[in-house]
Amino acid sequence: MERIEGALEAISGKAEVALITKRENIYYLTGFMPTVTAFLFLSDEPVLFVNEMDLESAAGREVRVEVFKKVSDVSDMVELRAVAVEPSMPVGLIERIGLGRDFQVMDPIADLRMVKDREEIRRIKAALKIAEESFKKIEFSGSESEVAARLDYLMRLGGSEGVSFDTIVTSASRSSIPHAVPTSNDLGSPLLVDWGAVHSGYHSDTTRTLVESEREHEILEVVIEAKREGLKVAKPGVRACEVDSAVRGVIEEYGYADKFIHSSGHGVGLEVHERPSLSADDKTVLTRGMVLTIEPGIYLPGEFGVRVEDMFVVGGGVMNSLPDHLR
Amino acid sequence: MERIEGALEAISGKAEVALITKRENIYYLTGFMPTVTAFLFLSDEPVLFVNEMDLESAAGREVRVEVFKKVSDVSDMVELRAVAVEPSMPVGLIERIGLGRDFQVMDPIADLRMVKDREEIRRIKAALKIAEESFKKIEFSGSESEVAARLDYLMRLGGSEGVSFDTIVTSASRSSIPHAVPTSNDLGSPLLVDWGAVHSGYHSDTTRTLVESEREHEILEVVIEAKREGLKVAKPGVRACEVDSAVRGVIEEYGYADKFIHSSGHGVGLEVHERPSLSADDKTVLTRGMVLTIEPGIYLPGEFGVRVEDMFVVGGGVMNSLPDHLR
Repeated sequence: MERIEGALEAISGKAEVALITKRENIYYLTGFMPTVTAFLFLSDEPVLFVNEMDLESAAGREVRVEVFKKVSDVSDMVELRAVAVEPSMPVGLIERIGLGRDFQVMDPIADLRMVKDREEIRRIKAALKIAEESFKKIEFSGSESEVAARLDYLMRLGGSEGVSFDTIVTSASRSSIPHAVPTSNDLGSPLLVDWGAVHSGYHSDTTRTLVESEREHEILEVVIEAKREGLKVAKPGVRACEVDSAVRGVIEEYGYADKFIHSSGHGVGLEVHERPSLSADDKTVLTRGMVLTIEPGIYLPGEFGVRVEDMFVVGGGVMNSLPDHLR
Repeated sequence: MERIEGALEAISGKAEVALITKRENIYYLTGFMPTVTAFLFLSDEPVLFVNEMDLESAAGREVRVEVFKKVSDVSDMVELRAVAVEPSMPVGLIERIGLGRDFQVMDPIADLRMVKDREEIRRIKAALKIAEESFKKIEFSGSESEVAARLDYLMRLGGSEGVSFDTIVTSASRSSIPHAVPTSNDLGSPLLVDWGAVHSGYHSDTTRTLVESEREHEILEVVIEAKREGLKVAKPGVRACEVDSAVRGVIEEYGYADKFIHSSGHGVGLEVHERPSLSADDKTVLTRGMVLTIEPGIYLPGEFGVRVEDMFVVGGGVMNSLPDHLR
């Protein structure tokens, strides 16, 4: 109940009840991962409402568990006064539960989740290990889709619970699309792979780009230098935006500022993207135990794109063991 | 622009602008599937705001495309008056875009999406074919997780864009959990597999249970009879709840009413679960061209569970070709 108490402390004085529906947050607080809509009400007497389908899996937790058949059952059973909801809460669910426009939006669990405890770091490391070992075994032939399918399969056989996110395998000129979907095209150069595994609910997230031509090598070197600069700066006490600025600074120096079109990294844990974000707007002070990625990229539309992404623990160094250069 | 015009017609007189953020709805209306947050404003002059990362993929659509860097950029560029949002819209995004509490919740696109056109049905059939062909090739040995991994791999090699949802492979007493996560347990009996493929954005969804003991066979027969009864009733002009009631009636007759703990089926398309729902609350009149699943199940906690799920086109019959009995 320690995490639930932390959450209650975070809302105290602002709301009387926190209604939690994000599945990762419910898992974080109770150890139970819902497969369909569930409602966790945090107050002096926390109660978890689950669908009958999830009852067998939810039973035996420290928190009281109740079954609901319809969303309106829930509002009949709890007093909905001074309720805080998470930013991720779908507005339709807010209406169905009968909150109308009478709610405030808060994200106390996201704050708690930023700093990982020892067990969480162990799980993230295990996920990353599966991901890296799988990558080493992969046969790079055939189409982008085939390589993605092989990598996913290897991760599953290696113990991953599905994939951390849709694996990106993109090559040749399509590598300039940061979130490219793998195609049936034969592999070309450069070859960008962005992939992750899941272990006990926790994610990994890594990118490597295999390059061939001199020009591709040059761009890769810039990106690696930017990553190293970011890692050097990302120490406890530094703000997220300062790391972003350090990474971006290197890329700017080489004249590619406008070709780096996303943030410099993000927290990773029960979700593959969580707080903080290494971007200009995020003033979060990095704290020992936060787990983040750092992922500079340069995208030259019509030519190609290069990205490198590592994970690191704030105060604990880089978690990846794969080298930056793979050819 | 035909679909956009249909959406505008649906909101006319109720809202001046519909703000669409659900990625499948944006794809349905524009042909572009966002990989990160995007905003489609439907009004007399529709405009699609995309992240810079998605610009290369989004370009060249019939709708005007603009890039936004921050969510607040969007509210600076459009007039936010009499805005309708989708039920799926995260309330935090509503706040960030500056709507405050000044919005109404409507789902015009979900209504439009229920009836599939010829091309949509072709894609769903293609997805189902990949799923069924992959199932036929599977080697049933090892653990639940290994079988799930193999099935996913076969679907990917068969041309599926990832998986339709996390593949369920569950056996022995764990089969009584409808949404069980595959474990490292060796396969037991019964063996329940619920899986689907994706083709050009469209999903399939099928369940088969392989049974051994006489008791398992008995329960499977009840479930198959319930499914057939439902398919018989599910004709154009009948309400979704009437199909549910027909399916549930058979299971009730055999004394298992309280062991059938979910709805009798659901629409399938760009999402694996979409409207209508074959459940007591859904009064939707079935119309020619809707694509649904029908999925009766009986779950006996501590013993085992059995489910069978087929897809069908309203007015067009069953889409599956796999037999109900697989042993």
